[in-house]
Amino acid sequence: MTERKCDRIMRIALQRGLMWPSSEIYNGLAGFFDYGPVGARLKRNIEEEWRKLFIIKEGMFEIETPTLMGEDVFTASGHLDHFTDPLVECAKCGETYRADHVVKNSLEVETDGMGLKELNKLIKDNKLQCKKCKQKLGDAWTFNLMFKTQTGAGKVKRNIYLRPETAQGAFVSFQRLYQVARKRLPFGACQIGKAYRNEISPRQGMIRLREFSQAEAEIFFDPKDTSHPNFKAVKNDTMPFLSADYQEQDRYEVLEMNVGDAVKKGVIGSEIHAYYLAISEKFFENLGIPRSAIRCREQLKDERAHYSSGTWDIEIKSEDFGWIEVAAIANRTDYDLGGHSALSKQDLSAVYEGGGKFTPHVIEASFGIDRPFYCVVEHSFREEEKRTYFAFDKKISPVRAAVFPLVNKEKLPGIADKVFNELIENNILAQLDTKGSIGRRYARSDEIGIPYCITVDFDSQKDNTVTLRERDTTKQKRVKIKDLVKLLK
Amino acid sequence: MTERKCDRIMRIALQRGLMWPSSEIYNGLAGFFDYGPVGARLKRNIEEEWRKLFIIKEGMFEIETPTLMGEDVFTASGHLDHFTDPLVECAKCGETYRADHVVKNSLEVETDGMGLKELNKLIKDNKLQCKKCKQKLGDAWTFNLMFKTQTGAGKVKRNIYLRPETAQGAFVSFQRLYQVARKRLPFGACQIGKAYRNEISPRQGMIRLREFSQAEAEIFFDPKDTSHPNFKAVKNDTMPFLSADYQEQDRYEVLEMNVGDAVKKGVIGSEIHAYYLAISEKFFENLGIPRSAIRCREQLKDERAHYSSGTWDIEIKSEDFGWIEVAAIANRTDYDLGGHSALSKQDLSAVYEGGGKFTPHVIEASFGIDRPFYCVVEHSFREEEKRTYFAFDKKISPVRAAVFPLVNKEKLPGIADKVFNELIENNILAQLDTKGSIGRRYARSDEIGIPYCITVDFDSQKDNTVTLRERDTTKQKRVKIKDLVKLLK
Repeated sequence: MTERKCDRIMRIALQRGLMWPSSEIYNGLAGFFDYGPVGARLKRNIEEEWRKLFIIKEGMFEIETPTLMGEDVFTASGHLDHFTDPLVECAKCGETYRADHVVKNSLEVETDGMGLKELNKLIKDNKLQCKKCKQKLGDAWTFNLMFKTQTGAGKVKRNIYLRPETAQGAFVSFQRLYQVARKRLPFGACQIGKAYRNEISPRQGMIRLREFSQAEAEIFFDPKDTSHPNFKAVKNDTMPFLSADYQEQDRYEVLEMNVGDAVKKGVIGSEIHAYYLAISEKFFENLGIPRSAIRCREQLKDERAHYSSGTWDIEIKSEDFGWIEVAAIANRTDYDLGGHSALSKQDLSAVYEGGGKFTPHVIEASFGIDRPFYCVVEHSFREEEKRTYFAFDKKISPVRAAVFPLVNKEKLPGIADKVFNELIENNILAQLDTKGSIGRRYARSDEIGIPYCITVDFDSQKDNTVTLRERDTTKQKRVKIKDLVKLLK
Repeated sequence: MTERKCDRIMRIALQRGLMWPSSEIYNGLAGFFDYGPVGARLKRNIEEEWRKLFIIKEGMFEIETPTLMGEDVFTASGHLDHFTDPLVECAKCGETYRADHVVKNSLEVETDGMGLKELNKLIKDNKLQCKKCKQKLGDAWTFNLMFKTQTGAGKVKRNIYLRPETAQGAFVSFQRLYQVARKRLPFGACQIGKAYRNEISPRQGMIRLREFSQAEAEIFFDPKDTSHPNFKAVKNDTMPFLSADYQEQDRYEVLEMNVGDAVKKGVIGSEIHAYYLAISEKFFENLGIPRSAIRCREQLKDERAHYSSGTWDIEIKSEDFGWIEVAAIANRTDYDLGGHSALSKQDLSAVYEGGGKFTPHVIEASFGIDRPFYCVVEHSFREEEKRTYFAFDKKISPVRAAVFPLVNKEKLPGIADKVFNELIENNILAQLDTKGSIGRRYARSDEIGIPYCITVDFDSQKDNTVTLRERDTTKQKRVKIKDLVKLLK
């Protein structure tokens, strides 16, 4: 049996310092991954591209709020009630399963929207068993997926939760943000940070994690005005739509349509929703994901989160995992502000210029970071006869340049040091590699996707030039040392 | 009574979007803070300066490991045994106190190093009472400060903890990192991320948080070689030392001494320890903290964490909080690798080139981010007759430039748009402000410490120049539009 691509990638990623399962020396902790030196830089660069788009270009606010929040917050947000899975446990060995998955897989019935009672009846009537020890399963129960802990000690303990999404930080501080926005809508509040989900049996490597990074933008707007000032910039762009209508007709080919027409024909509900879907889709193209491996799929009604009146996922095709959701652009309406306002008894409304109040609605652009990371790694992976390398887009390559003295003789090491120091003084992440044959050093550099190799050779001593080798083409050219910083920036 | 500086700063920070207490609409969650749009950018910029120093200039690895880790990790690291406070509870109202603080404050005795038994005896013998309801206190107990939760559900639950420091991620994955370093020492592994501490009664605003950000560098080295290749770059620099010896003699003035002499005279234990202390101290000067408000204080034996054989704190003076610890440079010896190796039964040693194995030792440079953030805010705060502003160092100012059309007439708004768009296309975080008098707009810009204001006026239409106003001096000069990007980068 040939090794799956994802296994090949993971094997190589481990060797090259991209990522590895957490706590390997303690036999690992399921659902948790470490980013190694190469992976952490790649992840950071993906996050920086996201900031460039949402914070600098779109001019949204960046905020940072705690990963731990109180019970009130998740009562109002609906997560205590709805962020749940039905579980069932083996009465003998204690192995835990998703009750709906057990029923779906054993009986081949559709379980979307099925309640606990119905699941329990099917499990009992059909005497469904534990896969491991073949004993009968107990009663199914509703399990909340938030990690719960407590602040304080003794009698004054208080329940708190690790957030399941970063978004609540923006909703809970809406009044402050609205003030900073000088009471003008629309405005966006963004956050990149950790979120958590106590998956019952995390598998699929980095695709389903218990601790993951999210980059989320909440755009607050007046529901009476669903236009967007920059809509004209995207309206003629064609996007690969897969609507809920299509899926209900069992059609899974994408419909290429321009964004303006998609709004006009009602494929997507509003200009503002379409605008954020369009710029989000382009974000992934900008990371180097081929356009043919991206689609915008509307979630079916059953799939939607409890707060959404309409959600479009952006999905990327993976060789082993199929279409992976990497971002979701949702219309959260006034669900969250309304919920927090009701529970806290605080006024979370905005005011019309002419007087009168309303609760803003929210379009959310919610991006995973770990899954896009994996997709970038998979789609940049090149297996050629003579080398296996990562053709990361230059913008996000973990290391920008490698500097080599051809040999450690004469003035070559000194010049290489000088070139290297000039790069790092200019905040260009570079590596100095002085060991092994030049071919071996090129190979090491390719292995982690460094786009440029700079070789200092004997001519460098005479004419202050070096060889610049480009990773993808392996072509080399002479460049002046004094032009390097500008060329690499 | 005049308002304390920290209260004035907090009041202004709230108004201007720097930070605010979390979950205000639910009456707050003690020990948790939100960073608002201005504060989050400032925090990010401080973190980026740290990365420039440790990752790019010092060439260390950046990694990112989960905030949740298993019980094994914290058994081996000593945190389950040592990361504790002695607590005592009021038998009636349930209010919880630090037992050592109660004894220290009520009886005016030194409690450092005092055990539970002794504390209990003093509480009982002296009939110490609850401050709130004046009832007697119960028995003191040892309380672990880690937040605990569980992965999985039902019978297969497993205890996990929110990490009290980022460092364990590097120790646990030492084998992988050593491989990426091609088995050469010394090398450093860094991480910026969240850490947690269930403080029993967090007060002092941002100085004592339950969830905070850390930036930590673990430098693995051969204990037989405590030199550092770049030591010569710092050895002639003078630093403000306050040794343990001095403190034991009740002397609290700093001793200005150059780093080379400090090592020679045994003030600090080794070149490698002194090197990281020196570059860490400079980091804070680079953020704009006045040199006179920084000192390097050696921790007394009683103060040290359980893993340390010697720790130097970097402290910054605050008007209201006194000297605040903002970083700690500790010699962790082989405590952590030794502990993990013993518990996991894995080989966490390094090899000598000539053969033979040893467990590397570790110098740790552990920085808070929230406290330096607060210190930067306090030391940048300027109260002048006509304006109150933040003179943030230009490198870390949250927003780089503000663009104003003098009036919204003729071609001025169009030119201002063009100037603004060119800045953001070049990844310069800028604000376009078109409302209110120019004086009001300067004031708004000063309030959040924007270093440059660019005004487009009638002359701009003729000669393609604008007025560039500098925040600290309020001086203005004419510059060409085409030179702006270069000037601001």
